[in-house]
Amino acid sequence: MGAVRNNKKKVLECIQNQGPINRAAIAKDVGISLPAVMSITNELEAKKIIRSAGFVSEGVGKHPELLEIRSDYFYYIGVDVGRLHLRGTVVGQDGREITKYTTETNHGENPEQCIEDICSVIQYVVEKAAIDNGNIVGVCVAMPGLIELGSGKVIFSPNFGWKNVPLQDILNKKLSPYKVIVRNANRAQARFELRPGAEYANKKVTVFCIGLGYGIGSATIINGNMYYGASGTSGEIGHITVMPNGPICTCGNTGCLEALSSGAAIEKQGKNIARMNPDSMLCHIVDNHLEKIDAKAVFRAAALNDVECVQIIDNAAKYIGIALAAAINILDPDIIYVCGGLTKNGSDFLEKIKKYTRARQMKFAGRHVKIIQGSQDDYNVAKGATLMIQDEGNMFEKLSFLY
Amino acid sequence: MGAVRNNKKKVLECIQNQGPINRAAIAKDVGISLPAVMSITNELEAKKIIRSAGFVSEGVGKHPELLEIRSDYFYYIGVDVGRLHLRGTVVGQDGREITKYTTETNHGENPEQCIEDICSVIQYVVEKAAIDNGNIVGVCVAMPGLIELGSGKVIFSPNFGWKNVPLQDILNKKLSPYKVIVRNANRAQARFELRPGAEYANKKVTVFCIGLGYGIGSATIINGNMYYGASGTSGEIGHITVMPNGPICTCGNTGCLEALSSGAAIEKQGKNIARMNPDSMLCHIVDNHLEKIDAKAVFRAAALNDVECVQIIDNAAKYIGIALAAAINILDPDIIYVCGGLTKNGSDFLEKIKKYTRARQMKFAGRHVKIIQGSQDDYNVAKGATLMIQDEGNMFEKLSFLY
Repeated sequence: MGAVRNNKKKVLECIQNQGPINRAAIAKDVGISLPAVMSITNELEAKKIIRSAGFVSEGVGKHPELLEIRSDYFYYIGVDVGRLHLRGTVVGQDGREITKYTTETNHGENPEQCIEDICSVIQYVVEKAAIDNGNIVGVCVAMPGLIELGSGKVIFSPNFGWKNVPLQDILNKKLSPYKVIVRNANRAQARFELRPGAEYANKKVTVFCIGLGYGIGSATIINGNMYYGASGTSGEIGHITVMPNGPICTCGNTGCLEALSSGAAIEKQGKNIARMNPDSMLCHIVDNHLEKIDAKAVFRAAALNDVECVQIIDNAAKYIGIALAAAINILDPDIIYVCGGLTKNGSDFLEKIKKYTRARQMKFAGRHVKIIQGSQDDYNVAKGATLMIQDEGNMFEKLSFLY
Repeated sequence: MGAVRNNKKKVLECIQNQGPINRAAIAKDVGISLPAVMSITNELEAKKIIRSAGFVSEGVGKHPELLEIRSDYFYYIGVDVGRLHLRGTVVGQDGREITKYTTETNHGENPEQCIEDICSVIQYVVEKAAIDNGNIVGVCVAMPGLIELGSGKVIFSPNFGWKNVPLQDILNKKLSPYKVIVRNANRAQARFELRPGAEYANKKVTVFCIGLGYGIGSATIINGNMYYGASGTSGEIGHITVMPNGPICTCGNTGCLEALSSGAAIEKQGKNIARMNPDSMLCHIVDNHLEKIDAKAVFRAAALNDVECVQIIDNAAKYIGIALAAAINILDPDIIYVCGGLTKNGSDFLEKIKKYTRARQMKFAGRHVKIIQGSQDDYNVAKGATLMIQDEGNMFEKLSFLY
């Protein structure tokens, strides 16, 4: 019986990863007989898990039937754990969004509360989507910071102030029987850029994706595959030194990109200049409530020609340019996606970033790299997380109810 | 006949890449019948190209004979084109060095003379090695700069002042019937670090290899495979900005690592301070012939506690540390090899580089990365180049005399 169950999972995964696919191809891929495949696929069809996707139209002789997973059977949950928000989404097999939910939060220094909130959001979206637990393949929780490869432990998240939080283990226990994986938010964002239907989906492209938000991170996709690095911590471009004697960073170092160009850094610089210039446009924008100053306010003041705010934004772009040029010189990617909340403040910022990157990248190196505005969908990290669950091996391992 | 010749090449390549290997495994790999393999391997044995490597010792039943390429049949030529030297080596199938040769040169701005010198060195080592042209599988010429993927064109080499020199095409014409490939010197150096017999040979390691010489470059090996990037120009760590308002670099930018920490930069800084301090240890070392000051002299003066030279070396290490920390944060490699002429000036320099890298890399990111002194063999680039020829597909394509 064990072997039969195992074969069912293998057939399902084969259809998931390669479908629409015909039965003979499944038999070859899984390494079982055609009659065995027919028996399993008949059962999966009867259970309304898979369906016909038409017939092979080319070639002579018999035109075999193609099978695919039904778009209304399996569902995937993605959660985006941001410093100031928590977003959850449920998508179907075909990527269709079933439901979504956002709540404002502040999870600095408090993993327990954050974990409770993550669980609440997941329960809420599952209820809202009105789907059976049994139809949920898994959950991917994406958050900023160093996530240990394999264990899904949060080794260090400077913006959350977390160290060594075994988040994946905790969530798997709390959310059983769901399968939960924890991934870095920048990888989820990068994964979303190559979502089905996107320009470079399923292409063997090398992509560098920078996320400019409250913090700064990045992810690299090499020849179409997510790159993790030797210990799973690659992509910490926010913590490369771009000004050796620069300001102190949350990571403990000085002059990191994040300490100069992140949303948090822009906010801090805005507050500093506002204190000294009570008549400035920036103070006017927040009605002199300086505690209300955030990166968005600084961008707005800059757009209204507040000279010091223009300087803050220009400086932020300058150091992002230096960091992206370093990434181009080292990695030579096909594409750079510039993502994250900071890019939602008008196109000038991206243009400045491009200008400084081009000025700093080595002449003739990475000549063909495209620098592109990333998706501005609020749910890009959450949706990318659902794709990361789909990319997992053994994704159906917890679905014992199938059999 | 074409198909038969093609099969011979495939069998040879299979034995080259996978040997020692038995005939049945060759048949499976190449996709031809066992009798066909036996006919080809008999001929190759008779021509003394391959030989028996004993028998499979495990398992029951027949113990099939293993075949390998004879170490005294095929030879590979590697050339290291440095800014101030030209080195050639000939190695056998087993990596044994047959002969080597070094000449001092100065190839700035003059590709024609350099190409003539490369050809002379190759002809000289072939004569010295006393081997038949027909036994030379190919030549790999390694030099610093941006080498176009596929074409082997030198797009830009700041230290040589070259732009758009179709070096691989020119050398293939001049050196016919040899097959010539042109590669970046840092990749050859990195390849040599994983040479057969080395600690991490044939391991799926991710390696970042920095070359600190007259210029500064690097190469990355990901999971045991050489990484080139989308256009072949990855690894230009010498041209990432580490001091935004720093000195002008040969590439045209300002504040590049190479402009602060390379042999050329150390030499320049040494000459500057020597002019102002005629009584300094540095001036004494070169007998007041300031034109004789090079990086080595600055290192020697620093070792003798010339305060300003100590400062130059410390600064150079500091910026190398910043750049390596950036590479760790972005790539998260298993190993960093620190290579190149500058590392031949005592172990203090490597210790300083390690200290500054550790201070600058993000806390907990790339925790397990080892920073190791690379090979100090003068011929590491040339020997690495011979391995790059061996790594090539279709390496036997020019050996028509075989058939």
